[in-house]
Amino acid sequence: MMHPALAQEALASWNDTAAKARIMDFVKATTTEGSEGYVAPADRIAVFDNDGTLWSEQPVYNQLAFVFDRVKALAPEHPEWKTKEPYKSVLAGDLKGVAENGQKGLVDLLTVTHAGMTTDQFSKIVADWFASAKHPKTGMPYDEMTYLPMRELLDYLRANGFKTFVVSGGGVEFMRPMTEKMYGIPPEQVVGSTIATEYAMVGDVPVLNRLPKIDFVDDGKGKPVGINTFIGRKPIFVAGNSDGDYEMLRWVAARSPGFAMIVHHTDGDREVAYDRKSAVGKLDKALDEAGRRNWLVVDMKTDWNKVFAFER
Amino acid sequence: MMHPALAQEALASWNDTAAKARIMDFVKATTTEGSEGYVAPADRIAVFDNDGTLWSEQPVYNQLAFVFDRVKALAPEHPEWKTKEPYKSVLAGDLKGVAENGQKGLVDLLTVTHAGMTTDQFSKIVADWFASAKHPKTGMPYDEMTYLPMRELLDYLRANGFKTFVVSGGGVEFMRPMTEKMYGIPPEQVVGSTIATEYAMVGDVPVLNRLPKIDFVDDGKGKPVGINTFIGRKPIFVAGNSDGDYEMLRWVAARSPGFAMIVHHTDGDREVAYDRKSAVGKLDKALDEAGRRNWLVVDMKTDWNKVFAFER
Repeated sequence: MMHPALAQEALASWNDTAAKARIMDFVKATTTEGSEGYVAPADRIAVFDNDGTLWSEQPVYNQLAFVFDRVKALAPEHPEWKTKEPYKSVLAGDLKGVAENGQKGLVDLLTVTHAGMTTDQFSKIVADWFASAKHPKTGMPYDEMTYLPMRELLDYLRANGFKTFVVSGGGVEFMRPMTEKMYGIPPEQVVGSTIATEYAMVGDVPVLNRLPKIDFVDDGKGKPVGINTFIGRKPIFVAGNSDGDYEMLRWVAARSPGFAMIVHHTDGDREVAYDRKSAVGKLDKALDEAGRRNWLVVDMKTDWNKVFAFER
Repeated sequence: MMHPALAQEALASWNDTAAKARIMDFVKATTTEGSEGYVAPADRIAVFDNDGTLWSEQPVYNQLAFVFDRVKALAPEHPEWKTKEPYKSVLAGDLKGVAENGQKGLVDLLTVTHAGMTTDQFSKIVADWFASAKHPKTGMPYDEMTYLPMRELLDYLRANGFKTFVVSGGGVEFMRPMTEKMYGIPPEQVVGSTIATEYAMVGDVPVLNRLPKIDFVDDGKGKPVGINTFIGRKPIFVAGNSDGDYEMLRWVAARSPGFAMIVHHTDGDREVAYDRKSAVGKLDKALDEAGRRNWLVVDMKTDWNKVFAFER
């Protein structure tokens, strides 16, 4: 168990509210040998949604911003895109037009931007994008659009013997090149949506080709499935922020001990205030049930004294 | 880097042959800061096939022995199995008869023994089986049918900062309850074949149901795919023993540094001598190419002074 004074320091961007106290109480109970709720270090698995929980997801998912930028970068090789949907809308910066192309349009965009290259090539494309792209509102690199209090929470849990994982609806190979740097989480502790890959030879060199076929969607009911498949044991701590995390919250909270928390986006000044009506990161059902199920709802505005590290 | 004298001690069941020296040289080169082949600890990923590489796979895969035992245990509830294949052959202990039912028969057997229950229920069935079943030849529990020199190798690599993973054609949830005890490898570092699972509610309690549908086969070309999906980075060390490991051996050995080794079953006294003609763990193509590709072929008879820990 970490000394309470050190824990206070470790969670410096958290105000001294009930939220912080609940987190610290849980960690104290699960890490104090001899206490009723003690959990052996090997079983201290903590899982975190990514979009809206660890990093910003507004105005659009970062991966969607990546898709748009890739379409623009690839457009010179595809003159037909000027008149062909959904590319035409992307090139015009017309989000509404993109949305009108529905699921089919999105899959088309994913296919041209995420498949048809090797895994190594895709990793490099992702890393290069993070090195140059800027968030439209803050002008910051996307890998700095992470929530400082959540990074502190990851550090704090790890300092108390927890093993931390990302469990996100995002593409696993879009996140893996960045999670170590952003969160201290290595690639093998990132669970996400996947597209199919295929072993193939290029001359005498084996490679893995990314195919235009979605393999697994790590969202909603898929999240407990993904945790079981990739991690193989039940977490005792889960953090999410939207209804896409609902089943994962239920699944973890059903065990004892099992701590579930929701990041509630209440701060329109430092970030964006949104929940029930938002097209991105809709939080409705999970918010309704949080009180009854004793899930911690973190109020970004009142519970955090800082949202991003780059704030003055 | 581990001191050479300590390394000698750590690999006590290995004779002082070229095989042991090559392993130690590789570990020294990759862990000595400033050396040309130095690899940062985070990238020291080592992957091990399971059947025939870490534990015995003769006379039949341990998981097949489990399937047979489960069919026998479930038979009283299925009187029709007495006259229905492939169950009839299983109940008669007729391996050849089982084989004659082909792939379809095997899938039927997998379905009745591995699906139709929750993940928690299946884990308990597996753990109970390991607690009672005995190997037909040695009379030992299956979790003691592991190769002592390979367990020493796992320990030795971890002591040198490597992170060790199982990458097996076996079912991931058949292995996970046992790998920590057998190999010091936690569930989240086990990659294997999977069947589909589905999130469902039992009253107010969420569970994961195991469905009668194979989701991913982690064998042959599937092994590099599985490593990429589950681990997300390329190993620098791989150990296998059969042609089912061929693509994984190729994939890892293609990088630099990349160490590939094959466990060659040459010891008919202490274990079973088999390779090119074996129905289980056939080693043919990979053995042909090992010399040319500079893969280490470990000769169990001459390179190991002990195979199992329970030997006198």
